[in-house]
Amino acid sequence: MNYFSSEFKLGILGGGQLGKMLLNETRKFDIQTYVLDPSAEAPSKIACNRFFQGDLMDFDTVYNFGKQVDVLTFEIENVNVDALEKLEHDGIKVYPSSKNLRTIQNKATQKLFYLDHNLPTSAFSRFAYLSEIEDAISNGGLKLPFVWKCTQFGYDGTGVKMVRTLHDLENLPKGECIAEELVDFKTELAVIVARNSAGDVKTYPVVEMEFHPEANQVEYVICPARITESIAQKAQEVALAVSKAYNHVGLLAVELFLTKNDTLLINEVAPRPHNSGHQTIEASYTSQFEQHLRAVLNLPLGETKSKLGGIMVNLVGAENYTGDVVYENIEKIMEMEGVTPHIYGKKQTRPFRKMGHVTIVNENLDTARQIAEQVKNTIRVIS
Amino acid sequence: MNYFSSEFKLGILGGGQLGKMLLNETRKFDIQTYVLDPSAEAPSKIACNRFFQGDLMDFDTVYNFGKQVDVLTFEIENVNVDALEKLEHDGIKVYPSSKNLRTIQNKATQKLFYLDHNLPTSAFSRFAYLSEIEDAISNGGLKLPFVWKCTQFGYDGTGVKMVRTLHDLENLPKGECIAEELVDFKTELAVIVARNSAGDVKTYPVVEMEFHPEANQVEYVICPARITESIAQKAQEVALAVSKAYNHVGLLAVELFLTKNDTLLINEVAPRPHNSGHQTIEASYTSQFEQHLRAVLNLPLGETKSKLGGIMVNLVGAENYTGDVVYENIEKIMEMEGVTPHIYGKKQTRPFRKMGHVTIVNENLDTARQIAEQVKNTIRVIS
Repeated sequence: MNYFSSEFKLGILGGGQLGKMLLNETRKFDIQTYVLDPSAEAPSKIACNRFFQGDLMDFDTVYNFGKQVDVLTFEIENVNVDALEKLEHDGIKVYPSSKNLRTIQNKATQKLFYLDHNLPTSAFSRFAYLSEIEDAISNGGLKLPFVWKCTQFGYDGTGVKMVRTLHDLENLPKGECIAEELVDFKTELAVIVARNSAGDVKTYPVVEMEFHPEANQVEYVICPARITESIAQKAQEVALAVSKAYNHVGLLAVELFLTKNDTLLINEVAPRPHNSGHQTIEASYTSQFEQHLRAVLNLPLGETKSKLGGIMVNLVGAENYTGDVVYENIEKIMEMEGVTPHIYGKKQTRPFRKMGHVTIVNENLDTARQIAEQVKNTIRVIS
Repeated sequence: MNYFSSEFKLGILGGGQLGKMLLNETRKFDIQTYVLDPSAEAPSKIACNRFFQGDLMDFDTVYNFGKQVDVLTFEIENVNVDALEKLEHDGIKVYPSSKNLRTIQNKATQKLFYLDHNLPTSAFSRFAYLSEIEDAISNGGLKLPFVWKCTQFGYDGTGVKMVRTLHDLENLPKGECIAEELVDFKTELAVIVARNSAGDVKTYPVVEMEFHPEANQVEYVICPARITESIAQKAQEVALAVSKAYNHVGLLAVELFLTKNDTLLINEVAPRPHNSGHQTIEASYTSQFEQHLRAVLNLPLGETKSKLGGIMVNLVGAENYTGDVVYENIEKIMEMEGVTPHIYGKKQTRPFRKMGHVTIVNENLDTARQIAEQVKNTIRVIS
């Protein structure tokens, strides 16, 4: 199929910031794009050829949208999988596949997948209802503390809670959930693996993540991770094993815990461009967004090595500010060397809402890290 | 003025490939953009907030378009300057200014500008009509060979001709023109200077251009130019002097001849993102398009140094092919290291038509140059 012909159409489910950055890459290949998103104000609304407003969880909406395109991909996991499955039967190329999406969408199923494939992950128990957790604790079947995770529709740190006492269980959703053992980790790592349908596979360098203590959102992504060569190699091997198990097409971002005793445990995966790969736009030979396109279009994968050291800082809404967004001091950070802001175009800010990110590149990673700190201390997302 | 607010509007005259690449950069800053272009199929039609179809040379069309925006810039010099002048009087920020555009639009006026400012350029004579050239030759006032240039509306090598015999004058436009002495140059260089209205100035590294023998279009742009440090410094100084003379806001691409005896002569300038800066997208800390935006919005200028060596190859229509475009072997060049194709989205190809460009980056410039050669010998723009 000639992706560079005006007949070819790429469909994207979800028109948020990831879709927007993906669409930017389609422009240089002049690929025709259709986007479906529930919001009339979706950032992707411009930069696509046709925009459709509709519910990503509605079977008919997703199916009818998908029928119009040749290849369908998405920027968010919370979409109607039955519609994707029917589209696959109809011969539409859907990447990632409905099969993988079913596994990944549900955190219990995803954890069981790793067990089935002898892939390292933290111990956990699945519960059909929150109440079963209380029973398990009272009869000694489950020990505090642990990490509660809602099995479905968790996103950007929602649906995850540290449970130290029974009080922490109050006001949590009542439905299916898992209790994960608390992993005593040194740092969290991530490896993005790209794979096209011809089976070519490439991994990006291992990145290191620093989380915001309260918001449970990544604060810095540091590429390359400041770890030993042997641990980096191990992380790549685990990521490749996960990629092989899923047999996916497109990107697979594999989040890993590095424990105090240097064991690597799979936290979770995302079958798409990921927050841990935003720095690739400025720091890598091939951005994760271009790479995802190359993969789902079965084009040759691009070089994944870095041009420079790269650090990504998330721009999240400051506490105590809700309303029309103002990027205080954005001009000041633009004066700093190698600093590129990415504003996602959300009109309203609220505490910890992801409003954009900033990339810092430098030949020297320590210098980049220092500038990243300055960036973080200078710009404020307020109203 | 808060450029990051939803009230601010940037207007762009011309919706071709340059406008399209400029618009891509506006996405990451979420700047609202309006575009005016004569073609309903303009590449910029998507990726802008509002698209207007209209004649760039028509006073009312340009004026009424400009009245709607806060800052107006353009990707092509052939626009109605009287409308720009009126818009400036109305308080719209127009960058580059109508004054500079008048000077640059007419090649005779532009050459005289350099003489007036004691800036080095090749000797030339201005003629109101082509017939005056014939008279000048016959009465010995003008010697063959020379370079004929139409003073207005030349673009991408059109409006320029090498005149070796009187026959070469046949079928040339009859109107105003200049005859430039034939410069015996080693190579052609270019320096892009960025300047914001606060007066901050930054120059990009000197690049070296290789022209296609027949098409008179740049075939390779090589960054950094393979010249001595002292010549590079001299080239930067000349470019800065030109920038100072124009007192421009935005980018100014200064094309220079390096003569056999290492003299630098100004060929011409472009007050906008330029073909000699396309490699900055992948090779520089700040792409020329982001830099132009920063400059016209009076934001701090970005770092201009290179991440890696960069080479740009123009993708032009192959000879003997006219019709619906096909990019033969584009997949093959995408397998090569550090290769990024940029397809402009023109539906029809014709011999030597500029259809896109390809950037090659590498730590080693010689390696990049070898890969660039492979790219050129592999991809073909046919129908």
